Amino acid sequence: MSDVRWEEIVAARERISPSIHRTPIMTCATLDHIAKKAVFFKCENLQKTGSFKFRGALNAILSLVPAERARGVITHSSGNHGQALALAARLCGVSVTVVVPEDAPRVKREAMEGYGAKVIPCRPTQAAREALTDRAVRETGAIFIDSHDDPAVIAGQGTAVVELIEETGPLDTILVPVGGGGLLAGTVIALSQLLPGAKVIGCEPAGADDAYRGLRSGKRVTAFTPRTIADGLRTPLGANNFEIISKYVPVIICVSEKSILKAMRFVWERMKIVIEPSSAVAVAPLLEHFPEVTGRRIGVILSGGNVDPWN
Amino acid sequence: MSDVRWEEIVAARERISPSIHRTPIMTCATLDHIAKKAVFFKCENLQKTGSFKFRGALNAILSLVPAERARGVITHSSGNHGQALALAARLCGVSVTVVVPEDAPRVKREAMEGYGAKVIPCRPTQAAREALTDRAVRETGAIFIDSHDDPAVIAGQGTAVVELIEETGPLDTILVPVGGGGLLAGTVIALSQLLPGAKVIGCEPAGADDAYRGLRSGKRVTAFTPRTIADGLRTPLGANNFEIISKYVPVIICVSEKSILKAMRFVWERMKIVIEPSSAVAVAPLLEHFPEVTGRRIGVILSGGNVDPWN
Repeated sequence: MSDVRWEEIVAARERISPSIHRTPIMTCATLDHIAKKAVFFKCENLQKTGSFKFRGALNAILSLVPAERARGVITHSSGNHGQALALAARLCGVSVTVVVPEDAPRVKREAMEGYGAKVIPCRPTQAAREALTDRAVRETGAIFIDSHDDPAVIAGQGTAVVELIEETGPLDTILVPVGGGGLLAGTVIALSQLLPGAKVIGCEPAGADDAYRGLRSGKRVTAFTPRTIADGLRTPLGANNFEIISKYVPVIICVSEKSILKAMRFVWERMKIVIEPSSAVAVAPLLEHFPEVTGRRIGVILSGGNVDPWN
Repeated sequence: MSDVRWEEIVAARERISPSIHRTPIMTCATLDHIAKKAVFFKCENLQKTGSFKFRGALNAILSLVPAERARGVITHSSGNHGQALALAARLCGVSVTVVVPEDAPRVKREAMEGYGAKVIPCRPTQAAREALTDRAVRETGAIFIDSHDDPAVIAGQGTAVVELIEETGPLDTILVPVGGGGLLAGTVIALSQLLPGAKVIGCEPAGADDAYRGLRSGKRVTAFTPRTIADGLRTPLGANNFEIISKYVPVIICVSEKSILKAMRFVWERMKIVIEPSSAVAVAPLLEHFPEVTGRRIGVILSGGNVDPWN
């Protein structure tokens, strides 16, 4: 693996800051009352392309040399990374192809096309995505940018928590959703530098609990069938991320589908912002009083808002 | 009528500022591109209780003398004013009753009860609301706080556009939804002082176009059956507001139900914030290229976000 160091997060931040939104931190008196905590939400659902993925994708493209950029980029994505890469590529004048599973939300697919990406539909399995992408890479020579396991992507994702801590000051616990693991890996690396005493909790749907099982057994789970509404978290934990996360040993907690939906509705109704189910996974532990959420000052990364409410 | 002067908006602002959110101003690159304008959204959907109504309700209660406060307050409301009055009353230690039509959104009714209001359901007609409220006033001696036609309420609503202009500087046109007319009246009074050259557009559902018809004929329309999804705009334009608005002659435009829904979905999908249909009425003219929206720098008051997406 390519290790990711704190310095790379610092460099990523310098590279991407002029082009990303510095997203707001929100609070919610009703949630604080229910959870008996002071909770700070980093609103990456208000990031460009509607998720934190724009940070990593942009850092990855900005890290390419001109000869690589000329070849174009390609990825497979259920949506958020695809949108992020599409916009990042457009901003850098790079052509982009995204292999998209057929069951991805309409709003995500349409947004990718809106940003000018070439979209190739595929069957909704990890194997089908990878096979179709590999073939396209061979045929076109485009540079593959993995949605979560690429060191430049991981470094980019780590910048979100840096901004959070800058505004809130010390926090006791930080809740982050975990799918492919890029956000969690970037977050643990950044926090090991900025707040080494803070507890990091990776939040996973019970129906896609590969990170939980893999970290407990010490062996990454690569084959499983995710069953969750949180479409952004159906990806298995990547190999690099598994190594990084194993080293920093955050707590992983699993959240039921019912709790995910309840948390999503709570945020829509009470905070008046649109989050997708994958983000709600990191809110549910507060509403459900999970005992793992210790301390009083809590940070939550609201990872994205790309959901189709009328689907 | 009791006239409302600029000084009363200034006084209202001083009174309520410590207890309200200074709501953010958002922009949306995609909308600017579609509308070929620079559009600034004042996000009152992120105000306490989820709408601008908290401004007016709080100003009204803070303007009562102690003997009046001791009698408690009462209103009838399809939701937003009721929620606003409920929270404002709780903050001031005043008891509160709200008469609510049976077809009001669940999320609004539940929030009122959550803030400690006594909720009395009634048939969904203006006459039924008023009759039931009158009876309760006679029986309990509570002070009636009208949702839109009370001078203290109007002055409070006028503070939203003051905050908007402070941050954006001069604007060419300001779009505001119009139902009972309190927000529009407060806005025209404030702008006549702050930006006398700006154009104010009151946006109304075509299915509840009493302001449009009343201002054109010079005679307030009092009896009509509203047919619109914008539940916050089903109220007829109030008598005081009709006088104020007639004096400042803003433009009134009517928006179809289809355009309202399209605009609401656009804001949810692209801006990732939850707005209710009544707010979308002031966004639709930008998406639909209404010729009345002149100039380049446009302000929109997103009035509220109290909608039940799963109803």
